[in-house]
Amino acid sequence: MGFNFSAAAAKARPSSVREMQKYNLNVNLISFGGGMPAPELFPVDEINQISSKVLKEKGKVALQYSTTEGYDPLRQWIAGRMQEYTEKEYGLDHILVVQGSQQAIDLAARTFVNEGDVVLCEQPTYLAAINVFKSCKADVRSVPTDDCGIIMESLEKTLKETANVKLIYVITDYQNPTGVSWSRERREQLAEMAAKFNVVVLEDDPYIELRYEGEFIPPVKAFDKTGHVIFAGSFSKMLSPGIRMGWVTGDSEIIAKMILAKQAADLQCNTFMQMVVSEYLSIFNIDKHITEIKKLYKRRRDVMLATMDEVFPKNITYTRPNGGMFLWVTLPENMFAAKLLEKAIESNVAFVCGTDFYPDGSGNNKIRLSFSNMTEEKIVEGIKRMAKAIELYED
Amino acid sequence: MGFNFSAAAAKARPSSVREMQKYNLNVNLISFGGGMPAPELFPVDEINQISSKVLKEKGKVALQYSTTEGYDPLRQWIAGRMQEYTEKEYGLDHILVVQGSQQAIDLAARTFVNEGDVVLCEQPTYLAAINVFKSCKADVRSVPTDDCGIIMESLEKTLKETANVKLIYVITDYQNPTGVSWSRERREQLAEMAAKFNVVVLEDDPYIELRYEGEFIPPVKAFDKTGHVIFAGSFSKMLSPGIRMGWVTGDSEIIAKMILAKQAADLQCNTFMQMVVSEYLSIFNIDKHITEIKKLYKRRRDVMLATMDEVFPKNITYTRPNGGMFLWVTLPENMFAAKLLEKAIESNVAFVCGTDFYPDGSGNNKIRLSFSNMTEEKIVEGIKRMAKAIELYED
Repeated sequence: MGFNFSAAAAKARPSSVREMQKYNLNVNLISFGGGMPAPELFPVDEINQISSKVLKEKGKVALQYSTTEGYDPLRQWIAGRMQEYTEKEYGLDHILVVQGSQQAIDLAARTFVNEGDVVLCEQPTYLAAINVFKSCKADVRSVPTDDCGIIMESLEKTLKETANVKLIYVITDYQNPTGVSWSRERREQLAEMAAKFNVVVLEDDPYIELRYEGEFIPPVKAFDKTGHVIFAGSFSKMLSPGIRMGWVTGDSEIIAKMILAKQAADLQCNTFMQMVVSEYLSIFNIDKHITEIKKLYKRRRDVMLATMDEVFPKNITYTRPNGGMFLWVTLPENMFAAKLLEKAIESNVAFVCGTDFYPDGSGNNKIRLSFSNMTEEKIVEGIKRMAKAIELYED
Repeated sequence: MGFNFSAAAAKARPSSVREMQKYNLNVNLISFGGGMPAPELFPVDEINQISSKVLKEKGKVALQYSTTEGYDPLRQWIAGRMQEYTEKEYGLDHILVVQGSQQAIDLAARTFVNEGDVVLCEQPTYLAAINVFKSCKADVRSVPTDDCGIIMESLEKTLKETANVKLIYVITDYQNPTGVSWSRERREQLAEMAAKFNVVVLEDDPYIELRYEGEFIPPVKAFDKTGHVIFAGSFSKMLSPGIRMGWVTGDSEIIAKMILAKQAADLQCNTFMQMVVSEYLSIFNIDKHITEIKKLYKRRRDVMLATMDEVFPKNITYTRPNGGMFLWVTLPENMFAAKLLEKAIESNVAFVCGTDFYPDGSGNNKIRLSFSNMTEEKIVEGIKRMAKAIELYED
């Protein structure tokens, strides 16, 4: 007798990125798959020192229930950081601490999306966001993009013609999967468009700190005059993803609703971990740590691009991101990434196929490569193995 | 311009239990409100020792992303504990680690409930479960209960007459809010009924370890022959609620779907914290620790009941639970708990009003008292303050 699953659960498929973690057991595999930060830069000793301090000084508080909205000193730090990003001031009622920015997406979806409502996103976009929106039975639609972000004429046309658009989901900095960043002009226009059509923008910006060159462009939230932009931030890339810590900054009315959604989802984030992050930020210099991360990732990106330039056939193109963790490869139209992956796995190199990043399931000839997690030596070797797999590819 | 919230978000109300945490800032307040464990028993030093060990030995793994299903050695421990509870064997594919048992409820709802589907529960029941089901736009209905659990004749009638019942939510041990436990017979019958009508039971059992007297009665999961029972367990009451750690045990097909729901919700639980809990369980004796907790809570329950027997008017009745953290007070019909709470707060004593535990908003004359978090001295003083507030109550 089959179980009577919900419609969303019946349709749900595993994320190929999460599934890829299973390959990690193969020690010979060079994986450009999961968007994993470099563990050699995790501040293990510092977190050890701080964990001990927090437990010794405030252990009973750290292990107890606490408020849903989050640990106030941590929210205060976030408010300050958001002010640096956007040159606006925020109160604690604009900040909610969440279980990684993945939860920000989920809570925003619960707060705005009814079954059948339309969610607009870039094409391609972060695959686990697509999964969230589909789990709410949203109608997930893509808007055409170029290398400056979503094309505003298309967005405006869609907003005019579609009654029930509830959310516009964008990744403006070093996008996952493409590595592309939005221009300043498009960011400004998006904020205006959101206000004009009374639609909320969810700006997912986990890579904002990982800029390797070029000028800082403020997030869409900086241009938000009406409260229509929700900014989702993350400690995963600047500190550690294993601690599951991120935040949402938004209009206080929206944050109040998202707090209620979080109460239902999991009551609150880990009290201890919030206190550890907060103490870390007050004792250590996170900016110095981020500078180290950026140095390493920039070198890895450069090595990956240089090796690709050298060994990839010329009919394969790819992005050259200014930051973040990913670059995006376009194979010739008749070459299927999924089929290439089989060959690649045999040669002990892995990547993520592009299809999952397309709400409509297209993108068969696209590949996402992450350059953050492998040493330069392995990047060179892995790209060479990929070139070999491409050479061996047969239609 | 108002934001265009989802129907569920527009209707959401704050949980009175979570809101009550704001009173905690008043140091003179004696609160029987939130279901808070006693922080004086948190194993702070042990967790400090283990945190340090985990970070020193496996820091890079602890701070990295890991699988959605959870840390295998922890899942292995859970499988063993579940075997003790139910005398059945479990593989890792029957176990999912979640962000406290609150997330178990949320993931089960996502996995089984479509908009308009019926969820059956006890009346009264855990208020934050009602909030989850309402956030899925379920039709939440109560089934009559007595002091042995849900009345099976009523349940069977409802299941026969209602096409789209997708979930039966029960708290079988020392129920929140009433403190009442199900009889063995009813547990057996519920498992049979679930199989007969192909409806899934979510058995929420965070208090299972907190038995102060009477014989151990196995959970409904022990009588489950068809996989229709999902068991939700928690480390909140045996270890610490601030670490947000619980689990789900169920049929592997159900667990696979719940893993996908968790991927969308928050990718995974905190890697570091899972390793800490797992190491704690392998190095320290959790049963000895639980024995300490039980000793303390039993004394507190006894003091609370003895004081109530002494100072409460005879027209106020209450349950005498064999375990858990709560007891349940019935005021005279014309006495409103919410109005009494105002008087009580003036006298620096707090409790939770019963209404929130009723899906239909009834229960105006009900009160939940938690005896786990206050010292015996404060319990005596707090109950006396309550008696005073009752005396001063005016229609």
